[in-house]
Amino acid sequence: MRIGVLTSGGDCPGLNAVIRSVVHRAVVDHGDEVIGFHDGWKGLLECDYRKLDLDAVGGILARGGTILGSSRVQPAQLRDGVAQALSHVEDLGVDAVIPIGGEGTLKAARLLSDGGLPIVGVPKTIDNDISVTDVTFGFDTAVGVATEALDRLKTTAESHQRVLIVEVMGRHTGWIALHSGMAAGAHAILVPERPFDITEVAERVGERFSAGKKFAIVVVAEGAKPQPGTMKYEQGSTDAYGHERFSGVARQLALELEDRLGKEARPVILGHVQRGGTPTAYDRVLATRFGWHAVEAAHRGDFGNMTALRGTEIVMVPLAEAVDTLKTVPAERYDECGCVL
Amino acid sequence: MRIGVLTSGGDCPGLNAVIRSVVHRAVVDHGDEVIGFHDGWKGLLECDYRKLDLDAVGGILARGGTILGSSRVQPAQLRDGVAQALSHVEDLGVDAVIPIGGEGTLKAARLLSDGGLPIVGVPKTIDNDISVTDVTFGFDTAVGVATEALDRLKTTAESHQRVLIVEVMGRHTGWIALHSGMAAGAHAILVPERPFDITEVAERVGERFSAGKKFAIVVVAEGAKPQPGTMKYEQGSTDAYGHERFSGVARQLALELEDRLGKEARPVILGHVQRGGTPTAYDRVLATRFGWHAVEAAHRGDFGNMTALRGTEIVMVPLAEAVDTLKTVPAERYDECGCVL
Amino acid sequence: MRIGVLTSGGDCPGLNAVIRSVVHRAVVDHGDEVIGFHDGWKGLLECDYRKLDLDAVGGILARGGTILGSSRVQPAQLRDGVAQALSHVEDLGVDAVIPIGGEGTLKAARLLSDGGLPIVGVPKTIDNDISVTDVTFGFDTAVGVATEALDRLKTTAESHQRVLIVEVMGRHTGWIALHSGMAAGAHAILVPERPFDITEVAERVGERFSAGKKFAIVVVAEGAKPQPGTMKYEQGSTDAYGHERFSGVARQLALELEDRLGKEARPVILGHVQRGGTPTAYDRVLATRFGWHAVEAAHRGDFGNMTALRGTEIVMVPLAEAVDTLKTVPAERYDECGCVL
Amino acid sequence: MRIGVLTSGGDCPGLNAVIRSVVHRAVVDHGDEVIGFHDGWKGLLECDYRKLDLDAVGGILARGGTILGSSRVQPAQLRDGVAQALSHVEDLGVDAVIPIGGEGTLKAARLLSDGGLPIVGVPKTIDNDISVTDVTFGFDTAVGVATEALDRLKTTAESHQRVLIVEVMGRHTGWIALHSGMAAGAHAILVPERPFDITEVAERVGERFSAGKKFAIVVVAEGAKPQPGTMKYEQGSTDAYGHERFSGVARQLALELEDRLGKEARPVILGHVQRGGTPTAYDRVLATRFGWHAVEAAHRGDFGNMTALRGTEIVMVPLAEAVDTLKTVPAERYDECGCVL
Repeated sequence: MRIGVLTSGGDCPGLNAVIRSVVHRAVVDHGDEVIGFHDGWKGLLECDYRKLDLDAVGGILARGGTILGSSRVQPAQLRDGVAQALSHVEDLGVDAVIPIGGEGTLKAARLLSDGGLPIVGVPKTIDNDISVTDVTFGFDTAVGVATEALDRLKTTAESHQRVLIVEVMGRHTGWIALHSGMAAGAHAILVPERPFDITEVAERVGERFSAGKKFAIVVVAEGAKPQPGTMKYEQGSTDAYGHERFSGVARQLALELEDRLGKEARPVILGHVQRGGTPTAYDRVLATRFGWHAVEAAHRGDFGNMTALRGTEIVMVPLAEAVDTLKTVPAERYDECGCVL
Repeated sequence: MRIGVLTSGGDCPGLNAVIRSVVHRAVVDHGDEVIGFHDGWKGLLECDYRKLDLDAVGGILARGGTILGSSRVQPAQLRDGVAQALSHVEDLGVDAVIPIGGEGTLKAARLLSDGGLPIVGVPKTIDNDISVTDVTFGFDTAVGVATEALDRLKTTAESHQRVLIVEVMGRHTGWIALHSGMAAGAHAILVPERPFDITEVAERVGERFSAGKKFAIVVVAEGAKPQPGTMKYEQGSTDAYGHERFSGVARQLALELEDRLGKEARPVILGHVQRGGTPTAYDRVLATRFGWHAVEAAHRGDFGNMTALRGTEIVMVPLAEAVDTLKTVPAERYDECGCVL
Repeated sequence: MRIGVLTSGGDCPGLNAVIRSVVHRAVVDHGDEVIGFHDGWKGLLECDYRKLDLDAVGGILARGGTILGSSRVQPAQLRDGVAQALSHVEDLGVDAVIPIGGEGTLKAARLLSDGGLPIVGVPKTIDNDISVTDVTFGFDTAVGVATEALDRLKTTAESHQRVLIVEVMGRHTGWIALHSGMAAGAHAILVPERPFDITEVAERVGERFSAGKKFAIVVVAEGAKPQPGTMKYEQGSTDAYGHERFSGVARQLALELEDRLGKEARPVILGHVQRGGTPTAYDRVLATRFGWHAVEAAHRGDFGNMTALRGTEIVMVPLAEAVDTLKTVPAERYDECGCVL
Repeated sequence: MRIGVLTSGGDCPGLNAVIRSVVHRAVVDHGDEVIGFHDGWKGLLECDYRKLDLDAVGGILARGGTILGSSRVQPAQLRDGVAQALSHVEDLGVDAVIPIGGEGTLKAARLLSDGGLPIVGVPKTIDNDISVTDVTFGFDTAVGVATEALDRLKTTAESHQRVLIVEVMGRHTGWIALHSGMAAGAHAILVPERPFDITEVAERVGERFSAGKKFAIVVVAEGAKPQPGTMKYEQGSTDAYGHERFSGVARQLALELEDRLGKEARPVILGHVQRGGTPTAYDRVLATRFGWHAVEAAHRGDFGNMTALRGTEIVMVPLAEAVDTLKTVPAERYDECGCVL
């Protein structure tokens, strides 16, 4: 069998672990040939690829990033993109394509699958927003990095009697904010799913100081938004960047809370560090299992599906289902936490 | 409501996070009173306890160990143990007891529950061997610590052309060995569930050297055993310790592999470091959720059960079921991994 | 002997280790009494303090922040500040004051010492800019945190073909930028000591891409400044914050490099995480030694000096000398590195 | 200029950073050619080497081990070893040899230098026992790994009321034991330089329990030895290994302390994990500076010396001096610490 693998979309710790696992399972155990397309779908559309043997994946299990490169190119955005992908797959004699990617990639995968491409998807997202799997690799690492930063920030906030507003990733969902906030004992957590009331945030923080505490940590997802018309400082007005639309919420909150509370408030924006570097053991195991099961699915001819974690099992789920709805944080998780405002 | 909490058995990262969560949920949200029994069941049997308010659990979320102390005392081992526990609970006006512990503790909990004690169990084990929950807190930290050590050991093994035999925890099950071995790309993994054939291990390692590789990493669970009569060096014969019966397998393997392969082989025994220290974010979140749900169960009068993770949900499972069978590594997980011998 | 200790100025990993060491040496070995003033000089000026015994410093060795709190209050800024400090020290029967702080604190210490206060200074700064000591505690931790972030960012930059501009602490000196940049293999390092030529930075980064490399990492100290009149985007113009004057250089560089190179460039601002949390072993050892030697100096009546590291020895240096000049990165260190532009 | 580089002796984090630095400085800045001999002196004796260009050292800065491999082969141990080395260097047109190694390697380097080989040494040792340099790379990483383990072990010891005896590296000197023990707040530290009195150790630990503390941590260097005739359990008698002569001291102590104190005591042997894996930022900077200065020395014709750190400067020191005496822990450092018994 000839298997093509590619990584597409934003960076995510564990991509290399999937690639390695696909190669190990396919080449060693099945005697397959594996090729890796460069820079996501772009490599498939431009027939830009290389052979992946055992040596090619030596030492990459714990390495962040992706040895294949990535891009945000999607076949459907290009004229004849789908047709070209199909024809290249045929020309190259590829029997199965394993795209590893997030929501956009899986949507493209579905489109190509509907068009006849033999596809086995592998979901990746640090945001944990793909609905049909309990979790994907990358999320645990992102939460770990954010939690470690929060652990560090707590001591400095305490010694210097500050409010720290820590912005973590999550444009549409608050999973990283929720888990890192819970893990680090944040005093307020703000998520995109629930527009926050700045007055409530100020009250919550204020109560801590009234009770004699000397600091507060607010974790805010980059996509969290205030209820309309409640903030004095408008988001977006201070940043010359067009492309980083959400980078402002922590700064906005810091200004607003300083004003309301008369306490030093400082924004900390964790940024890209959350999606780079060595994956946690959890993510390496999950990524390895996904890669293994993707190869097995390909050998069974089980196409049009993607790998998913359900409990402790890896199962196959239709791509159509996978991209249907975003997995948002359910309301009962807010209750458990007690500090999602 | 008056809730008593205790931690019993071996150490496990996340115990403090459960205690903190119980206090936060019970005291802050329900207005309950919480007391903590010292040193596990011993504290209950001897009425040795202290009140736990918010201050008592300040700053403990990320701390290893347990602020309540632990012991291996089990009520059933003591004359009138069960009766005494019951009578103390009544005397103290405790409405619910939340024991946090492993298999032995949960068995005791069941016994006391059958005897009439209002119990909500919280499972803990770094070994991941409790069958009715997908996982418990502590396991992720143990795997993380072992993986980090393996990452370090790989580079030194490679530079110095050695076989390193790394012994991880797991007396009865190979979960830590499997996950840390997968995460670190070990070349052979030996687990208690499957007695290993030393000839096969030597062959596997030997093949690597024949293929030009310069090192090999073997991960072995402390409880892994050779198939009878196959080893030259007998386990147990070299160790003056009575109580550490399984400490020898890595040493035994190192001697045996050096003999068979003519390569330097060195044992590394990770030991207690796997069960101490700061829990991972994953374990802190899970522990926090367990604590929250235990309090909720107590308020619902949902006794005789314990918290469990199923997929992404926390559910309640009868204690009777919990301690029925040990959760061993299923055979299909060996296949996925490819290097469990 | 009665010793007063205080921590003043910005946060710095290792403060607690000094406090603990002072208490251990003074109380246990000399039978002294130790009191800790709250929130830096403020506590001395307001007679706000508490007794520090062994229990008070239990478990703080590895903890970030300072159990005594800190502030930026300086006695000389207050009417009668110096006189008040002197009179309080006399009233309290304090035989020696050990202020732990940075440049500002040591200047104040010198002033008070000249005024007659029996002072033994302990220098702290994550910035490494105190000239009479090889290094102070806090710096190693800050460099370690920045390096770990850079390690993570490298893999994501590489996979996504980006320029990452990483802003580290250092308003007046480039030590953290230099050491973290060297440790992580940055491709350009910009420091306050040497105003950078944006054209040279763009060329250096451009050459990498021309040579087929897919990414570049630029480390910039927050206080680094462009040569006047060379940048298109003016610093400070985009930020509504008055008090964070230097937060803009990474953003400014990212905009400018994107413009000039036509490559995605992203700013990452590490911020407060560099000065919080658990100190490295190096910093704990150095802080512990400083504390020990400060107590010894007090017992020798060796006042008006501060502890300093010279090679492997702890020596005492006059406070007057300590605050004379800022320790900037010497030019030969740029040569060693090869990428300070 | 043609430069040959090799790494010899036991593993040490930072070796790759030196190699990379040599190549960067020599190839990029001087236009030199660099070759790397494989497996230490063995590669020089057998003319086994490869060219090292920029690509060859890409991505190795933070990697543990050595891309060149290492061995313990010493030229003087072989018939005609020195003559062969000299003749190969001439045949290969090598103008300077940079051996990176510990005491044994530097002794060999001196011998070869005396024989006429143009040598610039670079010292490495995790043990910190080379006398003419303040410190070498590798030590900081080893101390960091040991400290992190001790941090973890403290919480578990406390919760379970144990004495933990933690054995760290150091056959002849106690530097790692001293620094990790100080950094982690160990209650007793045992070093090879001062044979310990078991009665004193037991008393020190016993006093803690008498004072109501629930645990104790003893850090012991692998080469620490009891005063003769004082121990009940004799070292060496329980271990079938010939080559790991010192592996027993922690076990021996655990047995002895359990006997004397009636408390659970457990040995933990950290082992090879201390000399593998990613170097700390400190070690990477030092290793990079050593490599740079070694190349400069070669270009100056400054042979027969090795790089050394003195304060903040890198200086050159005669090889003859370097290997003269072992740098042991001076007695005043015991005093500073207060718990070296």
